[in-house]
Amino acid sequence: MKQSVKQQLNDYIKLIEQKLDEFLPLKYPEEIWESMRYSVLAGGKRLRPVLCLETCRVLSGNFEQAIPAACAIEMLHTQSLIHDDLPCMDNDDYRRGKLTNHKKFSESTAVLAGDALLSFAPQIIIQKTPKTVSQDKILKVLEEFLVSAGAEKLIAGQVVDIDSEGKQIDKDTLHFIHENKTAALFKLSLRTGAILGDADELQLAALTDYAEKIGLAFQIMDDILDVTSTLEELGKTPGKDALEEKATFVSLYGMDTAKQRVASLCDEACDILKENNIVSDILQEIANSITERVA
Amino acid sequence: MKQSVKQQLNDYIKLIEQKLDEFLPLKYPEEIWESMRYSVLAGGKRLRPVLCLETCRVLSGNFEQAIPAACAIEMLHTQSLIHDDLPCMDNDDYRRGKLTNHKKFSESTAVLAGDALLSFAPQIIIQKTPKTVSQDKILKVLEEFLVSAGAEKLIAGQVVDIDSEGKQIDKDTLHFIHENKTAALFKLSLRTGAILGDADELQLAALTDYAEKIGLAFQIMDDILDVTSTLEELGKTPGKDALEEKATFVSLYGMDTAKQRVASLCDEACDILKENNIVSDILQEIANSITERVA
Repeated sequence: MKQSVKQQLNDYIKLIEQKLDEFLPLKYPEEIWESMRYSVLAGGKRLRPVLCLETCRVLSGNFEQAIPAACAIEMLHTQSLIHDDLPCMDNDDYRRGKLTNHKKFSESTAVLAGDALLSFAPQIIIQKTPKTVSQDKILKVLEEFLVSAGAEKLIAGQVVDIDSEGKQIDKDTLHFIHENKTAALFKLSLRTGAILGDADELQLAALTDYAEKIGLAFQIMDDILDVTSTLEELGKTPGKDALEEKATFVSLYGMDTAKQRVASLCDEACDILKENNIVSDILQEIANSITERVA
Repeated sequence: MKQSVKQQLNDYIKLIEQKLDEFLPLKYPEEIWESMRYSVLAGGKRLRPVLCLETCRVLSGNFEQAIPAACAIEMLHTQSLIHDDLPCMDNDDYRRGKLTNHKKFSESTAVLAGDALLSFAPQIIIQKTPKTVSQDKILKVLEEFLVSAGAEKLIAGQVVDIDSEGKQIDKDTLHFIHENKTAALFKLSLRTGAILGDADELQLAALTDYAEKIGLAFQIMDDILDVTSTLEELGKTPGKDALEEKATFVSLYGMDTAKQRVASLCDEACDILKENNIVSDILQEIANSITERVA
């Protein structure tokens, strides 16, 4: 990665960490706010909010208007992880190298912390987006957010994923899971940045396509890393897919095809940027770096 | 209850049932939509949406503009019941005389159905509120909704409630639980109807006070019924508070004081309506009928 891009990326991440901390107060009853803060501030790549901010910046020259929405998307992502990790779902003890929320606090607190984040995130969009942004745009962003979070996208993916455990599933079903469980939030990130950055229809469509490609690449890489990584590298328990007889891109297509697919999706994502004159080192670098992910 | 009021009430309930059914489609993956529909369409008094619609009507002469928001509030109420009933929370097997969501489906489906309702409800407000309602009002309604659903209100009440099990708690803590776990949604119902019905500041304040009174009365009545009712009457397991050594209004103040407090709160609620020239048989009747609740 070029030094200047690395610096830009680090600046974004630093800003996001700071804003997440600022947006999440420690109120009474402290236990619930602590538990929300514990998972939201547990690190992570902050890929989704970075994508949102950079998309807004590359289109409009500014990203300030997207900060609350970017943080809201990260809260939504965290919410989905907290509930995914619950004993009745994936039953995971570790996430990002730390105890999962229900292990650190309790199962009931983890359920409620997820619920609280799910309404706090759009609340932040309403309350913290600068007043210069039109109400029309805020409502568009909220609608995209709520649809992505719900049973038409994220939760649809999660339900089919849980249903598929220990079953033979076909490639279409796997694609449905990847599309909704992972790509949907990447699309939300890009589309939110695009709406707040005043994208025209063509730009919005192109950025949605880019998000689709890197979202799928990211998920396939996840499947690859579950086979090849250690707990230390991954920050969560590896080898779980095989243990749970979960169909993954690797189990359905084989490791070689999986790696090739990641590479070609990332190339296609970069091509979309070029063809649409969207000049962003960060968006290009994020696509390229997915193949080099170790966690 | 006067026959004409009973008829009006039944008309509202019929409309709400029909709209809830209409707003909640049966999509793929069917399991999650079925489970959302199962709990939302399980009956119940529909008190919150009725309050919302009638408030809007009494102020503006119309209630059509409040139908999506009223249904959203009922979905939020249902979401909180689904998650409250989970094994890691109240661990209830029955609700409204039917198996609870996690008993009928599974624990993971119940968690996800609650999550899905939590984002679907505000989505409905955005997508289904008539275009004649200003974006400013829709954003105000959404903000009230999200704040009420979250860790500043509903979830704050729930967390303190769970924390209090098996403990000696003081009257202030009990009031905090009742205020946030119950009164908050009554306030949301009235305030939403008021905003959409073009209330002025005085009307909004008066209707918020009315909601506070009947919300607290309703919760104290809940505590009373938990002691005096049967499973058949209640539709959920009675006697749970005592079994779990949960402090209630009855255990802290005694049965006589509890009954007196319900009566005086309901009287005060009716007085607020009179003092502010808010003429609604339904709002008056709902306040009066809380003392006569059997479930």
